[in-house]
Amino acid sequence: MRPGKRGDLLVHEDEPFNAEPPAAALAAAAITPADAFYVRSHGPVPTIDPSRFRLRVDGLVERPLELTLDALRQGRFAVREVVATLACAGNRRAGLAAVRPVPGELVWGSGAVSTARWRGVALADVLAAAGVRGGAAHVGFAAPDESAEADPPQPFGGSIPLAKALGPEVLLAWELNGAPLAPDHGAPLRVLVPGYVGARSVKWLERVEVRAEPWDGYFQRTAYRLLRPEEEPGPDVGMALGELALNADILAPADGERVAAGRVDVRGYAIAGGARAVARVDVSADGGRTWLAAALGDDLGPWAWRPWRLALELAPGEHELVVRAWDSAAATQPEHAAPLWNPKGYVNTCWPRVRVRAA
Amino acid sequence: MRPGKRGDLLVHEDEPFNAEPPAAALAAAAITPADAFYVRSHGPVPTIDPSRFRLRVDGLVERPLELTLDALRQGRFAVREVVATLACAGNRRAGLAAVRPVPGELVWGSGAVSTARWRGVALADVLAAAGVRGGAAHVGFAAPDESAEADPPQPFGGSIPLAKALGPEVLLAWELNGAPLAPDHGAPLRVLVPGYVGARSVKWLERVEVRAEPWDGYFQRTAYRLLRPEEEPGPDVGMALGELALNADILAPADGERVAAGRVDVRGYAIAGGARAVARVDVSADGGRTWLAAALGDDLGPWAWRPWRLALELAPGEHELVVRAWDSAAATQPEHAAPLWNPKGYVNTCWPRVRVRAA
Repeated sequence: MRPGKRGDLLVHEDEPFNAEPPAAALAAAAITPADAFYVRSHGPVPTIDPSRFRLRVDGLVERPLELTLDALRQGRFAVREVVATLACAGNRRAGLAAVRPVPGELVWGSGAVSTARWRGVALADVLAAAGVRGGAAHVGFAAPDESAEADPPQPFGGSIPLAKALGPEVLLAWELNGAPLAPDHGAPLRVLVPGYVGARSVKWLERVEVRAEPWDGYFQRTAYRLLRPEEEPGPDVGMALGELALNADILAPADGERVAAGRVDVRGYAIAGGARAVARVDVSADGGRTWLAAALGDDLGPWAWRPWRLALELAPGEHELVVRAWDSAAATQPEHAAPLWNPKGYVNTCWPRVRVRAA
Repeated sequence: MRPGKRGDLLVHEDEPFNAEPPAAALAAAAITPADAFYVRSHGPVPTIDPSRFRLRVDGLVERPLELTLDALRQGRFAVREVVATLACAGNRRAGLAAVRPVPGELVWGSGAVSTARWRGVALADVLAAAGVRGGAAHVGFAAPDESAEADPPQPFGGSIPLAKALGPEVLLAWELNGAPLAPDHGAPLRVLVPGYVGARSVKWLERVEVRAEPWDGYFQRTAYRLLRPEEEPGPDVGMALGELALNADILAPADGERVAAGRVDVRGYAIAGGARAVARVDVSADGGRTWLAAALGDDLGPWAWRPWRLALELAPGEHELVVRAWDSAAATQPEHAAPLWNPKGYVNTCWPRVRVRAA
């Protein structure tokens, strides 16, 4: 990782562009500024002329549609706003790579996660206009960005279950924090699937396909799957990722930071997967032996992370800060990274640990 | 715990009657026989004359109802069947009590969980007949069994969110595995809330109350809550339990069992909370360092546990068998019991461990 080319972003790759904000930028605000929002791309940014853009809606529908941006934005569909967190399935991969290398994957730190206020129309309303036919069970999303990572090379795409697609939170979105989507974030239109791994929020969306089966492209059948340690990636090997798993992180202080002894403000976020809520966050200053209650920040709605903070009294010396979250089902996070290691380095949900020296 | 008074059940208490099947009885069948189904009671079994029984449906409804059993069973409501697992929030408490005592609570082993085929009508259909009014957000369930455990003594009761109550899986049930409910299981009528802690499946149901706020009785405001280790139980302290958390157990062989070296059949179940599914089960024969894939048994539907099995080759000597499950959000279970300890001993979701000696 080297210092960012764009604003504060730490750039993993220039082409395709992949970059994450430093933890401090995420800690600074519950809503991530657009220029600090992480970027995950699998191919070059496509050039799309908004005036010629058409979204196709087809597959198992009664009435295939071709919609201009104006038809979406100023047409018969109610415009909605949703505050939602996107998180890459590979967020916190560095913690797994420290157990054992994860060849061929970007080593994301704490920052492949960001939260924004999105504006668009409900996918459900567009599907209702098209008329979903019997036998439909999944909704696929296709983009034009040709990815050389795929085998064979192909555009990015993916699908979600129809039941999820009909939720009012799933948007065809053209705005992030009140401004039109930047090219890196999918201009002119992307799908937003709150509560799911970021890979399903397909950027540069050009086609919505109602399907009987899940997406059969590389990025769902082969990539973005949780494998057993001994498995080799291949079509339908392992489990496809979908809903996010419960996770949390410490965003401040930073690992290795020297802080003044005394009161130290510890901050971070927690996020519950799918339709669950964050119910409780615990912070430990002794490596997880005893825990204190963190204060939960403002509730930004069911699809956003929950910021938390805690003022800790730290005596001079080394301290290991640890966090864990509990969701509304009283499920909590696993402790260690090693049992979670998997060949693609996904879903690192173990307790985050930060070592600080108070002086 | 002493040998059971009733069939194979291991009896914790006679009055109120609390008993669990041995693990071997649960391992023997995916659908638990009625006389092996665990029993959790908080007061004496009420005597209810079925011919005089009336279910009241009131609170925030347009048309309060009083329904006889015949009106429910042979009236305007479609009769439905659901295969569902009930699990006590205190199941596997023995694992927490081994870390530190849990005074005043029953020390459940592996058996406060069972699965049955239930028959009844959808609560949603009955609520539709009553007409849910604006402002409704919860649905409460009241029983007549006076419990001396409560402070002050009061009947058992609880509530679930309205959105859950409207799911087709929530039944007003009068049959378990094709036979009328036994008195211990709530005759003549109980509510069945699949995916939630067993405490919400109120037995001897006599009233359904549509409410603006959650149930305010002892068994929801004070009991059945997850506390921090240092907290004292009290009204609204800690988090109310609702959806089940992901869990699993090894049902055979038993802890401490001597088995013949060679091929050993390991069996158990996993259950995902709420609307999630069990996606994968791993078994370890070396305490959790390496894992093998268990075979998942028949899918009994979204509300039932998932039986699993694996034939392990065990060399002569001591072995520690461990299991962990993964749900459809790629969330998995925490490793150790100690970090999960809580004053009421609920929600022990850590990796189950069984020590066997192969000879």
